[in-house]
Amino acid sequence: VIELEPLRGLPEIRPGDDLAALLSACGAELLPTDVLVIAHKVVSKAEGRVVRLADVTPGARALELAAEHGKDPRAVEVILGEATELVRADAGRLICRTRHGFVCANAGVDASNAGAADTLVLLPLDPDASARALRPRLGCAIVIADSFGRAWRKGQSEVAIGCAGLAPLRDYRGEPDLDGREMRASVVAIADEVAAAADLARGKTSREPAVRIRGLEQYVLPDDGPGAATLVRAWADDLFR
Amino acid sequence: VIELEPLRGLPEIRPGDDLAALLSACGAELLPTDVLVIAHKVVSKAEGRVVRLADVTPGARALELAAEHGKDPRAVEVILGEATELVRADAGRLICRTRHGFVCANAGVDASNAGAADTLVLLPLDPDASARALRPRLGCAIVIADSFGRAWRKGQSEVAIGCAGLAPLRDYRGEPDLDGREMRASVVAIADEVAAAADLARGKTSREPAVRIRGLEQYVLPDDGPGAATLVRAWADDLFR
Repeated sequence: VIELEPLRGLPEIRPGDDLAALLSACGAELLPTDVLVIAHKVVSKAEGRVVRLADVTPGARALELAAEHGKDPRAVEVILGEATELVRADAGRLICRTRHGFVCANAGVDASNAGAADTLVLLPLDPDASARALRPRLGCAIVIADSFGRAWRKGQSEVAIGCAGLAPLRDYRGEPDLDGREMRASVVAIADEVAAAADLARGKTSREPAVRIRGLEQYVLPDDGPGAATLVRAWADDLFR
Repeated sequence: VIELEPLRGLPEIRPGDDLAALLSACGAELLPTDVLVIAHKVVSKAEGRVVRLADVTPGARALELAAEHGKDPRAVEVILGEATELVRADAGRLICRTRHGFVCANAGVDASNAGAADTLVLLPLDPDASARALRPRLGCAIVIADSFGRAWRKGQSEVAIGCAGLAPLRDYRGEPDLDGREMRASVVAIADEVAAAADLARGKTSREPAVRIRGLEQYVLPDDGPGAATLVRAWADDLFR
């Protein structure tokens, strides 16, 4: 049995806030076998990964892309600063590869729930490091989540952009299936499924950025583990360049 | 609070089996607000969507692709029969668009847990129709799931290939965020997140193809709803052709 419950009462997070202390203060019991899934936005804000549009001067490339795709050139400037590659451009969204290797809309730069109208929230610089820093303080496994679109499908799904103490992948290859036949191509993106599950337990417009999941003992590690960086397919293996 | 629990004791499913009756016989309480997530394989088997390799004669195109990618030409023949387009070929996997519009490895044709060594399981012909047929008999919302790979990421994640009684998408566009700012590009693939969540509650090698999820009342519909076909991005909108 798996149980998901959002943490309640987290205040609006500001740069420099001690996120671990504020999460602890929500009063939810956290066991070492629990997984706490945290929306990246509160992690980014605590880490000061926010940019005020008023402080941004767009360059030539940003002005050009902004005109072409009907976007704010200052926002495009910020997006380009986070991107190593513009993969596709689509109806107002610039699908970019980030410096972490993630491929997502607007290089993960987001304006909603940013805390102020002229503010953009960026992805944490190193979300696995953010998760590793939170893990000992909260005493449970940590997943940092963001919603990514999916090629060929509508709607976004939450994925893990950082994790610590959770096995990001479960590799069934080489193990026998129910018929005793060796399973092929069965590597499950556990951390992404965990992030997706947590998203169901909270409302987008309610202030519940953290969800506790109980019952995932089989995927909880005694150490930090390899992190969500493992989930990124190498550029050389990218079939959709 | 959301709770996930696998149904236990489902026997091996054979073509012609009454899947709804066998699922009911597992004895789990199913409320109208519950969602039952079912691995497509048992649905496909009950519907007779299985092919014995011994009965397949590969054509010229299958022989050619099989040689090129180190696959069984008979399996490739079956895959091509399910595919409307070969999107990419990658290390032994043929990424195809199926007649449903899904883009996935081997057009959803799978050999593992097929029930016999020379048998392949295909996707249901119309997984939304399968879900709609199961819904009144089980008295709860139904999701039929399969694991798909993800562009740019490693590992597979379960997605919804059919559903009835569950809202497949939750569209937040136009609603205010916490700062009163209109949210953009916020459409959540609820049915896919539900499928992913369920995958965490069962082991691949244990016989637990069905998982009951309790606590998703906000996404359960009074009717069948639009089904998982809604999650398929139209070919014309495909940025990754």
